[in-house]
Amino acid sequence: MKAGILGGGQLGRMLLQAAANYTVETYVMENDPDCPAAHLCHHFTKGDITDFNDVYEFGKNLDAITIEIENVNVEALEKLEAEGVKVYPHPSVLRIIKNKILQKEYYKEHSIPTSEFIVTNDLAELKQHNSFLPAVHKVGEGGYDGRGVQLLNEEADIANGFDKPAVLEKMVTIEKEIAQMVAVNEQGQTALYPPVEMHFDPDLNLLDYQLCPANISQKTLYVVEAVSLAVVRNFKSPGLFAVEMFIDKNGEVLVNETAPRVHNSGHHTIEGNYCSQFDMLWRIIAGYPLGNTDIILPSAMVNIIGADGFQGTPRYEGLEDTLKIENAFVHLYGKNVTKPGRKMGHVTILSQEKQELLFQSNKVKRSLLVKS
Amino acid sequence: MKAGILGGGQLGRMLLQAAANYTVETYVMENDPDCPAAHLCHHFTKGDITDFNDVYEFGKNLDAITIEIENVNVEALEKLEAEGVKVYPHPSVLRIIKNKILQKEYYKEHSIPTSEFIVTNDLAELKQHNSFLPAVHKVGEGGYDGRGVQLLNEEADIANGFDKPAVLEKMVTIEKEIAQMVAVNEQGQTALYPPVEMHFDPDLNLLDYQLCPANISQKTLYVVEAVSLAVVRNFKSPGLFAVEMFIDKNGEVLVNETAPRVHNSGHHTIEGNYCSQFDMLWRIIAGYPLGNTDIILPSAMVNIIGADGFQGTPRYEGLEDTLKIENAFVHLYGKNVTKPGRKMGHVTILSQEKQELLFQSNKVKRSLLVKS
Repeated sequence: MKAGILGGGQLGRMLLQAAANYTVETYVMENDPDCPAAHLCHHFTKGDITDFNDVYEFGKNLDAITIEIENVNVEALEKLEAEGVKVYPHPSVLRIIKNKILQKEYYKEHSIPTSEFIVTNDLAELKQHNSFLPAVHKVGEGGYDGRGVQLLNEEADIANGFDKPAVLEKMVTIEKEIAQMVAVNEQGQTALYPPVEMHFDPDLNLLDYQLCPANISQKTLYVVEAVSLAVVRNFKSPGLFAVEMFIDKNGEVLVNETAPRVHNSGHHTIEGNYCSQFDMLWRIIAGYPLGNTDIILPSAMVNIIGADGFQGTPRYEGLEDTLKIENAFVHLYGKNVTKPGRKMGHVTILSQEKQELLFQSNKVKRSLLVKS
Repeated sequence: MKAGILGGGQLGRMLLQAAANYTVETYVMENDPDCPAAHLCHHFTKGDITDFNDVYEFGKNLDAITIEIENVNVEALEKLEAEGVKVYPHPSVLRIIKNKILQKEYYKEHSIPTSEFIVTNDLAELKQHNSFLPAVHKVGEGGYDGRGVQLLNEEADIANGFDKPAVLEKMVTIEKEIAQMVAVNEQGQTALYPPVEMHFDPDLNLLDYQLCPANISQKTLYVVEAVSLAVVRNFKSPGLFAVEMFIDKNGEVLVNETAPRVHNSGHHTIEGNYCSQFDMLWRIIAGYPLGNTDIILPSAMVNIIGADGFQGTPRYEGLEDTLKIENAFVHLYGKNVTKPGRKMGHVTILSQEKQELLFQSNKVKRSLLVKS
């Protein structure tokens, strides 16, 4: 089977590490021939994943194609799908997910709980909704990793809003932020991973650390699972999905966003679960049985991000200390350049004891710094 | 760091999967550009690993070089070592290990328990040792995976012996066959993996299944560990070593053979142990701290070998049944051609329960067949 990946970052890299457990022939397209995934595939193509011709030419002789980022040319994927190439997820899902307005409307249309929202086409429209604040303003298309998102706490902040189609989402008083990976195969069968509990860095809006399984009540877990399934089933598409949710102060479960691909919130599954998210996606693409989502041990995951004030060839200060932690698994993405806030690696810790997970996560966060 | 691997089979493939957790720039040399490891490295070189010039040209600009098979050009590695390339293991170790006569003499010289033996230079010499039978006759150089090994039970078998330098080893009444992986870093620090218990297919002399940890008494474990350490310490070389041992009917521990590299008997460490044998070798090469050899869960490992009577493009009959086993991890090596007895993949099972390990191993062995 010939399978292609659009994008050659760390998600592609880890997909390719997992692909080498099977017999798939792998293809990657990315503009940067030194990207983290470029050397781990059978065939690398330098190209623009947002360009119709590049994507179409890359995909037309493949059996299957998947993505590691939503920002790809959907029209080309639609043409490829029409010509018989299997696309994971279906391009119809990408159309919805790529646009934060359509994504919110999708949740509403399918009675999936999500925060209240108003669509604003420009700044003039936004200004009419003072009374809706505090809220979060998100641009419809093009946001990623915290870009294109603006907190509007009070009237004075409205000038910081986006003067283009965007969605204004009522601020949720968050008790807990969780994510659940869901696998859907070609037959529509699903497999739910145990949800994870996420803790964010408020400055960078990047994941600080994450715990699996999330510490939520059995009752909340039932709701979370029902909500995750509702999100993915209505897409009517095979693939792997990360459903990000808030639990608010009243215990309500609200969907924040969904990623229709392998995702940062599933990195811990490489060591923590029987079937990793990367293995799972290959199973879906190859038509193999869905894997076992059970945990082997509880886990914590820490993103290793480029330190503030450093740009250039990375130097991993404190790496030895992390490598000495007996229950830590280090993943460096091999990026040639570090930048403040750039995801340069992650570390997963396994332990039965939550205190041990927190202790070692903090040790990693404090000691392992990516400088230049 | 630029690191090269001589050989591009499954061991190279799994080394490269592990290398992608670090920032190493990888090089592979192998004659077959479609070999299992060829597409997973930064730089692939088609070349003959037994040829002086090929190995020297491949290695001369590298920082470090390792092997996935002993049958490499040692002279070239010696020259590379003299010129400052770090070689894992040292070529001096390869000289000893590659030759089964020198290997036995090494054990004797260092008072390492091993079966009695006689060196025979030709068939005429062999014929003088009727009284030493039953014994195993092994050619000095060139044997691999059961080739170059002949059981000589009685006088009539002597004609099957080798008419070239070989070693005649007294037959051991084997109670149990075990193997222990040992890591040695540049400073001479060591880390011992829990020993595994091996069960062989008597026809192919290939591993049938293996259990970790081996079911041996604490007293025997102490002896095994002391013996393993004696084997590797006297080599005075960093690297990863698999020490294969017999425990005879009297409970004596006897070293059979040592492999100075990642080894089939360590495949289970990918999922079963905190630090896999592949991760461990990269730590040694990069000068990182040695990893944690503790098991996460007990494991069984089954080799998936080419079925008798089939040669050609492989077809993995029964793969779905294996992929449905909830605690099984499938590794297919992506070889283009199956042959009877060829190692085509392996499956690791994790469980606290030995009965479950045996049950699932047998299920895999019976259901997963590689045909063409």
